[in-house]
Amino acid sequence: MSSTFGKNIRISIFGQSHSEAIGVTMDGLPAGIKIDQAKLQQFLERRAPGKNKYATQRKEADKPEFLSGLVDDRTCGAPLTAIIRNKDQRSKDYDHLKDCPRPGHADYTAHVKYKGFEDLRGGGHFSGRLTAPLCIAGGICKQILEQRGIHIQSEIVSIGGNEEHPYDEIEKAMKTLDSVGGIIECTATGIPVGIGEPMFDGLENKIAQAVFAIPAVKGIEFGSGFEMAKMQGSESNDCFTYIEDQVKTTTNNHGGILGGISSGMPVSFRVAIKPTPSISKMQQSISYERKEEQELTIKGRHDPCIVPRALPCVESAAAIAVYDLLLSATAKGEIREEYL
Amino acid sequence: MSSTFGKNIRISIFGQSHSEAIGVTMDGLPAGIKIDQAKLQQFLERRAPGKNKYATQRKEADKPEFLSGLVDDRTCGAPLTAIIRNKDQRSKDYDHLKDCPRPGHADYTAHVKYKGFEDLRGGGHFSGRLTAPLCIAGGICKQILEQRGIHIQSEIVSIGGNEEHPYDEIEKAMKTLDSVGGIIECTATGIPVGIGEPMFDGLENKIAQAVFAIPAVKGIEFGSGFEMAKMQGSESNDCFTYIEDQVKTTTNNHGGILGGISSGMPVSFRVAIKPTPSISKMQQSISYERKEEQELTIKGRHDPCIVPRALPCVESAAAIAVYDLLLSATAKGEIREEYL
Amino acid sequence: MSSTFGKNIRISIFGQSHSEAIGVTMDGLPAGIKIDQAKLQQFLERRAPGKNKYATQRKEADKPEFLSGLVDDRTCGAPLTAIIRNKDQRSKDYDHLKDCPRPGHADYTAHVKYKGFEDLRGGGHFSGRLTAPLCIAGGICKQILEQRGIHIQSEIVSIGGNEEHPYDEIEKAMKTLDSVGGIIECTATGIPVGIGEPMFDGLENKIAQAVFAIPAVKGIEFGSGFEMAKMQGSESNDCFTYIEDQVKTTTNNHGGILGGISSGMPVSFRVAIKPTPSISKMQQSISYERKEEQELTIKGRHDPCIVPRALPCVESAAAIAVYDLLLSATAKGEIREEYL
Amino acid sequence: MSSTFGKNIRISIFGQSHSEAIGVTMDGLPAGIKIDQAKLQQFLERRAPGKNKYATQRKEADKPEFLSGLVDDRTCGAPLTAIIRNKDQRSKDYDHLKDCPRPGHADYTAHVKYKGFEDLRGGGHFSGRLTAPLCIAGGICKQILEQRGIHIQSEIVSIGGNEEHPYDEIEKAMKTLDSVGGIIECTATGIPVGIGEPMFDGLENKIAQAVFAIPAVKGIEFGSGFEMAKMQGSESNDCFTYIEDQVKTTTNNHGGILGGISSGMPVSFRVAIKPTPSISKMQQSISYERKEEQELTIKGRHDPCIVPRALPCVESAAAIAVYDLLLSATAKGEIREEYL
Repeated sequence: MSSTFGKNIRISIFGQSHSEAIGVTMDGLPAGIKIDQAKLQQFLERRAPGKNKYATQRKEADKPEFLSGLVDDRTCGAPLTAIIRNKDQRSKDYDHLKDCPRPGHADYTAHVKYKGFEDLRGGGHFSGRLTAPLCIAGGICKQILEQRGIHIQSEIVSIGGNEEHPYDEIEKAMKTLDSVGGIIECTATGIPVGIGEPMFDGLENKIAQAVFAIPAVKGIEFGSGFEMAKMQGSESNDCFTYIEDQVKTTTNNHGGILGGISSGMPVSFRVAIKPTPSISKMQQSISYERKEEQELTIKGRHDPCIVPRALPCVESAAAIAVYDLLLSATAKGEIREEYL
Repeated sequence: MSSTFGKNIRISIFGQSHSEAIGVTMDGLPAGIKIDQAKLQQFLERRAPGKNKYATQRKEADKPEFLSGLVDDRTCGAPLTAIIRNKDQRSKDYDHLKDCPRPGHADYTAHVKYKGFEDLRGGGHFSGRLTAPLCIAGGICKQILEQRGIHIQSEIVSIGGNEEHPYDEIEKAMKTLDSVGGIIECTATGIPVGIGEPMFDGLENKIAQAVFAIPAVKGIEFGSGFEMAKMQGSESNDCFTYIEDQVKTTTNNHGGILGGISSGMPVSFRVAIKPTPSISKMQQSISYERKEEQELTIKGRHDPCIVPRALPCVESAAAIAVYDLLLSATAKGEIREEYL
Repeated sequence: MSSTFGKNIRISIFGQSHSEAIGVTMDGLPAGIKIDQAKLQQFLERRAPGKNKYATQRKEADKPEFLSGLVDDRTCGAPLTAIIRNKDQRSKDYDHLKDCPRPGHADYTAHVKYKGFEDLRGGGHFSGRLTAPLCIAGGICKQILEQRGIHIQSEIVSIGGNEEHPYDEIEKAMKTLDSVGGIIECTATGIPVGIGEPMFDGLENKIAQAVFAIPAVKGIEFGSGFEMAKMQGSESNDCFTYIEDQVKTTTNNHGGILGGISSGMPVSFRVAIKPTPSISKMQQSISYERKEEQELTIKGRHDPCIVPRALPCVESAAAIAVYDLLLSATAKGEIREEYL
Repeated sequence: MSSTFGKNIRISIFGQSHSEAIGVTMDGLPAGIKIDQAKLQQFLERRAPGKNKYATQRKEADKPEFLSGLVDDRTCGAPLTAIIRNKDQRSKDYDHLKDCPRPGHADYTAHVKYKGFEDLRGGGHFSGRLTAPLCIAGGICKQILEQRGIHIQSEIVSIGGNEEHPYDEIEKAMKTLDSVGGIIECTATGIPVGIGEPMFDGLENKIAQAVFAIPAVKGIEFGSGFEMAKMQGSESNDCFTYIEDQVKTTTNNHGGILGGISSGMPVSFRVAIKPTPSISKMQQSISYERKEEQELTIKGRHDPCIVPRALPCVESAAAIAVYDLLLSATAKGEIREEYL
């Protein structure tokens, strides 16, 4: 495992779906930052289950308990740790999964890597539930960035390929005991020019690294992304111009990033989310013990589509990466004073 | 800048397009590994310019000089450093670029970040030339992986959207003084089950982080990637089966990675390469000094398409990421003995 | 703050003296390791206060609660997090410290660094209390190392300069409302030859880095240390010999480390611990507000000497550093098989 | 090996005593910093051999060649790499060392770790020669710190225990074909309050980690160090006072560091240097092949004492650590504006 991210800010996520608690430590936050708890809670509720009819109906408070790092809701310079207790985590029986990995999940790969000692209750550390602490860290970074005029938001581009009526596809998947994937677009505005540490810690490198921490993500593209692969240079190059004495580009195929560094245009990227791997339909799997195929039916309720709940997760990954790189640039005096 | 990658193996790339030399240091290589210099040279020549009629005609040997870390072509445990001298690096005049950033390049973003002190000769550290040391490191990692039965290869999927006759699009771009992008697919076979350190250092996270070090990359997708966003779970989930007593999946939408960890199926990903930003056509840019728009014509010869030369770069990025993660898994005893 | 240590094992410590809880996350532990909870508790009690008549009489259970990473007392591959709740943490009034820094403490430096937002209750993150999570991590690493035949132990060399009857000095300090420092020697046996990653991550570098995380440490020396500065080479060089077919040295001035790498001889180092800075005697300090000197008397009970309680902390720092470097060497296949 | 140090500035040292070249890469330097080459050369000559009658007579220019990162002697934002060519590196025969490790050197530990593939010519990567690139990096950091009013200097405290006439001990050692160790004191003035990232990256942790990269260092103590272990708290605590409206302490037992953070008082530490392990006297070693003891006489000229040449190395280690931590504090806005 390597559930640690960042250089000047280090995010360390811990917990399994059914361990005592899940949580996150943020080390390196400047002191004196005010955290708006109500706003953070609002942000977390966007990913919480049971919030719309397409999501699992399990009701969880997901209210973080802050163990350290805050004094009167302000950062104090010490590492900030927040946890969320898991409830009823011992209630279910996951013994049947010991012998039969769920398709599309990490059951099999974790089983080999951790030699049978993995926590397979509810997907363990691989559970989508671990995006809750990601969102705590992301929500905090988002608030800090907003205090500096940087805003990160995201929206659903399509579900099941349907851009017009994405939610219709969720309905269809529900009816057929199936699930469906989708695409999310995330945009960050207000990032000053000069953020990003190429070659390996450029904005694209670090946003991509962070975004792939979200379990179901299978692709990422910046600006016009894969469309640029079809273009000619005269189309894809964004022309420079001046708008109110500020250098801008007339188009934004580059997605606000040139050479790994922010250009002052909106940073935009799209993320491909695969269908929820847990489906109620019967699937083909194997028995480790008998070394042969066996059928598997996963019981319980499952999100037919996790794309809506993935929105704050994608924003969180972006916020963490952008904030860490903002600090790297600040360290070297590369950011204009008003951002300090 | 952060031109350093990896944890157990640390790759540190240095140099600018027109500095005295470019090069790479690899720290953390096990001692006693035989480097096949002829094979490495062959690999480097795949990215060298002037090797086909679609590439720039500048002839460069690009033969690495090994300064340290090798004794009789075997690693000795000390950091390995190889450099390539830049020839004629002072000959050209880049003063005109001081006032006029090239569209699609990092000229403007570097200018702001480095406050006018950036090396703008030939694109400085942002030049595609810096992929040469990436390929030295990648070629070496590739050889080591091959000694362990892991093979990484790549091919062109399409150029300018043309899958049938990709090279026709390069011809067209040449004739119109334009350039064109494309898509590369890279596949790694023989990776043992259990490689990858989720959440943040999974195979997808680290391959993506490494691949975005290649200047023109704007997107990456693993397995069926963005196509999965259109699928239903019953389609996208890959069923488990046994083939010769080995766990395999009947399809490979997951691209050999589940939960960030290798599944034993081929690891496959596709990368979107944007068109070469340097084109001979006139483009619109700006004058920093006059704070207004001005036209720009870039002189000299340019690759109409860098996709063919990007193949070994993509393989290199993958090789570095995979090898570093192989060592992380080895540290914890997660790899079967035959891979040690 | 940077309360994170290690490469293959990452230890992240959080909490303040009076926050809700203190704790530690260990990321990167191999799966399947059995943790002996009773043994861990015994180890933690060696640093707990109130265990002997020379230590503060506050009674704390200091019993770690494991939030994640363990299933049936075995590591599961996911990050392990353990916390200790702070009791009565809001009871005391620390307002007087806002204006008057305690000599020998981090009050003033933290006040400037964290701009007045630091948590000054009980010393915040700088409190000796934070060595409890260090000892949780250290105790676990120690158990793992013991399973591999590596044993770390420490003893008091002197207190207040008294080697013969060290505890007499504690008595004296108590009677005079004063405190006293001392020297600890730590020895690790059974470390295989080849551990340590010079130049910057050699055994000396990393043990020293870890040991200085213990608040009162002001010096460290390996082997004969500062005594070697008085020697001639013919005295200080340790001669090689064979003992039962194993290479050994006839003396151990080098403290088991040559070139940053373990030699197979016992790794030994000594650490200087300063006197407890909290003393009941009146001291001279300042008032920030009045910008002038003022007298300070610190109330409450204080350890007259923290050296006895520092023993498990020093062992913990050594255990963490040694274990992390053991994994680095394992990654590269530098360790003989029986240690895997 | 892990010859990489630092977070915001990453120093990567490469080379062996007899490889083609030795060198260093500095990644993360802010752009626009003027490097005074003459001053750097002066600094490097302080560690060069043959500069005084007590040092080896080999004449080496040790003039760094800058391969990248500088444009007109100013940093350009790209990684800075400098190398020093090794001359005549193939001339000597080191075959006899293959079977007989030199006492006090890393020959044996490297032999086991690198399984016989180590470069044993002249000590390989463990040679004191590798402190030359350390001093290039250190000399550059020193210049940058000086531009911000931070000055680092060092002096010899004693040689062979002799504080009065240290150089007499070198004479004695020469005459007896022996060598001798000593103690260096290093002081940094002008460090603003608030530098250092406890718990693990405090000033003491990082200076110690860096200093132990110098081959012969066996101990380090800050402020009154090991003397504090003999003191009472009322003696060792430094009282706060105001001097010209600045908070200062009346004494400096804490060596300018409280809680790992700079206090504004001079940062001071002492380092123990062991005697040069290469001596002309006959010594006892072993034959790997015959698995028995054998006598060893090391030919050639050797420094009877490396303490004088170690001075700039110690300053370099301190400069690198301090500068990296200065950037970490700057990232978080913890440093007063005049230091930016």
